[in-house]
Formats: sequence, structure tokens, C-alpha cells
Amino acid sequence: MASTKQRMITTTAGLVRAQGLHATGLNQVLADARAPKGSMYHHFPGGKEELVVHAIAEYGEVVRTLLVHCMDGNSVEGGIEAFIVALGNQMSRSGYHAGCPVGVTAMEAGASSDALGAATKAVFEMWTDVLVRRLEDAGEEPTRAQDLATTAVAAIEGAVMLTRSSRSTAPLAAVARTLQRLLGPGSLRRIG
Amino acid sequence: MASTKQRMITTTAGLVRAQGLHATGLNQVLADARAPKGSMYHHFPGGKEELVVHAIAEYGEVVRTLLVHCMDGNSVEGGIEAFIVALGNQMSRSGYHAGCPVGVTAMEAGASSDALGAATKAVFEMWTDVLVRRLEDAGEEPTRAQDLATTAVAAIEGAVMLTRSSRSTAPLAAVARTLQRLLGPGSLRRIG
Repeated sequence: MASTKQRMITTTAGLVRAQGLHATGLNQVLADARAPKGSMYHHFPGGKEELVVHAIAEYGEVVRTLLVHCMDGNSVEGGIEAFIVALGNQMSRSGYHAGCPVGVTAMEAGASSDALGAATKAVFEMWTDVLVRRLEDAGEEPTRAQDLATTAVAAIEGAVMLTRSSRSTAPLAAVARTLQRLLGPGSLRRIG
Repeated sequence: MASTKQRMITTTAGLVRAQGLHATGLNQVLADARAPKGSMYHHFPGGKEELVVHAIAEYGEVVRTLLVHCMDGNSVEGGIEAFIVALGNQMSRSGYHAGCPVGVTAMEAGASSDALGAATKAVFEMWTDVLVRRLEDAGEEPTRAQDLATTAVAAIEGAVMLTRSSRSTAPLAAVARTLQRLLGPGSLRRIG
């Protein structure tokens, strides 16, 4: 069984993903993680901010693993489509409550908390780097690969946002179709 | 001078934009808007949710006006670039505190509040429709125009998110370059 510390991190990622950073209180984390009251400042002396930094890093790694898995043995555009389909399935199965803890934290506190700004930035860069490397392997030149990868990460985060509002995977599907054309061979990548 | 009700709406849009939905308390709104305590339930009997619905609609209209202004007498891709430059200037001038009240509300509560889900969805659709009409005027066929416009709105919201974390307009600039190529003549729009 996971340690108390690990349960608190995973619980926090799930709560922030569903309801946002500020709406997630430490009492709710402790109760949902079945953690004794003292565990908060024992494991996370920096308080909520330190706990959320861990949760963001953990969630970032989970999504990076999913992204790499979708890309393996696939074209860049096929991998992106598989990844977006997986996200859309998670969202619809959750009644659209499954959002993105990294994205919502960036929107709420990316500019006001140095620790949370740095933690979310590191995860966005980690995801972007996976795509940059794949695009470069597919023959894209580095600065263009960086632009395309940044746009893909931004468009997918924005599509998660639109999907939460519309409670329909239509925005994710629209972005998937456009990114397939943007990243695929014979596409803009080859003509610009 | 603006009415108390109007000041409360504009103040709420600004606070949610900077710090998010849950972090914005009614006492802060009343104080910043110099509104007497009773004004809250006098003007907004539905409470905070009703106030935020008004704030989102007002901010949505302000941004729609800016988008139309940037598009007027411009190509689609030139208009998008001008719009993103204007957003980037607002963000950097504010020390990256100026985010998007519609996007952060969608991420925090789009799936849990029916009223806020509907309000944010309506604004995203209003912005998307401006781009759909411009793309159709430029000869794009309707379903493809809808995909491209949805992707542009998603990518710009995602770029605002990445820009808040990185405290640099680099993500907005990367998305601007990619959207110019995606939406411009001789681009993917013409070959897909």
C-alpha cells in the first residue's frame, strides 16, 4: 500500500484536477487520503504549496508516460490523436470532472506563486520536449519543432478547458483533427 | 460614473482574471468596487455565481470587440497575430497577472456549476464564431472553418496558461507563428 505521503500527493492531484487549486482544502486532502492530522506539516513542512508542487510533478509524469506510450511505434500525428482520444475518454467517463491539475494551477496561481509558476512551467516543458524530440526525429528543424510542440500542448490544454464548459468532447475532436493535419506528413510541416 | 452594479461586475472580472474564481471573495469585490454591503444580494440575488456569470459575459464581449477590431481590414492570419500581440502586451504589462477570467472559471467550475459551464461555453462559442465567419469569408468550407476556429481559441487560451507559468510571452509568440501558418493563404487551409 502506498505511504501516507504518497497517498496525500495522489489525492491532491485528483482533487485539484476536479475542482481547482483554491477550492482544494487541506482537511479534504487529509480525509480523502486517510492521513492523520499531523501528516501535513510532517511530510510537507512548506504547507499546501509544497504538497501541490509534488502533486503537479507526479501528475506531469503520469501524463508524460501516457503521451510516450501513445507515441511509441506511431507517427507524430497518430500518437497525438491516440493521446487526445485517451484524454477525451477520461473526461467523458468522469462526467467532465477530470480536468488538468497543472493547467488549472497555472491559471489560478502561475503568476502569483513562484513555486507553483515554476512547477507548472517545468511540466509544460516536459510535455513539450516529448513532442519536440518526436518532431525532430521526423525531420522537423528545431525552432519549428518547438513552435509546433508548444502549440500542440497549448491547444490540448485549451481543448480540455473548452470540453469542461461544453461537457462534450467536440472541442478535443476539433483540435485532434487540426493537429493531425498540422503535424502529419504532407502537411504544413512540409510546406511552410 | 458607472453604477454600483456595473462596478461590481467589472471588478469581479478583473479579480477572477488575476487570481481565479474560488480565490475571489465577495468582501474583496465589495471593497474594490466601493459598494455597500447590501448591494450584493440586492443586485445579484443568485449570489456569487450570478455575479460571475455577468462578469464572464462582460469580459467575453470586451475580448470579442478587441478580436473584431484586430480582424477589421486585415487577413485572418494578420488579425490573429495582432490579437495575440495585444494579449501578450496586456499580460507582460501586468507582470503576467492578467490571465483570462473565462478560461480559469471553465477550468475551476465548468463541469461542476451548470450556470458557469453555460456562461463560459457561450463566450468560447462567441469568440469561435467571429473566427468561423472570417474563415468562411476567406473561402473556407464550414466544417473545416469550425475546426480551425476552435483550435485557434483553444491554442490561445492554452498559450495564456503557459505564459502565466513561464512569465514570458514566448508561448504566445510560438502559437501566433503556428496559427499564422495554419490560417494563412497557401497554408494547410489550402492543401488539406
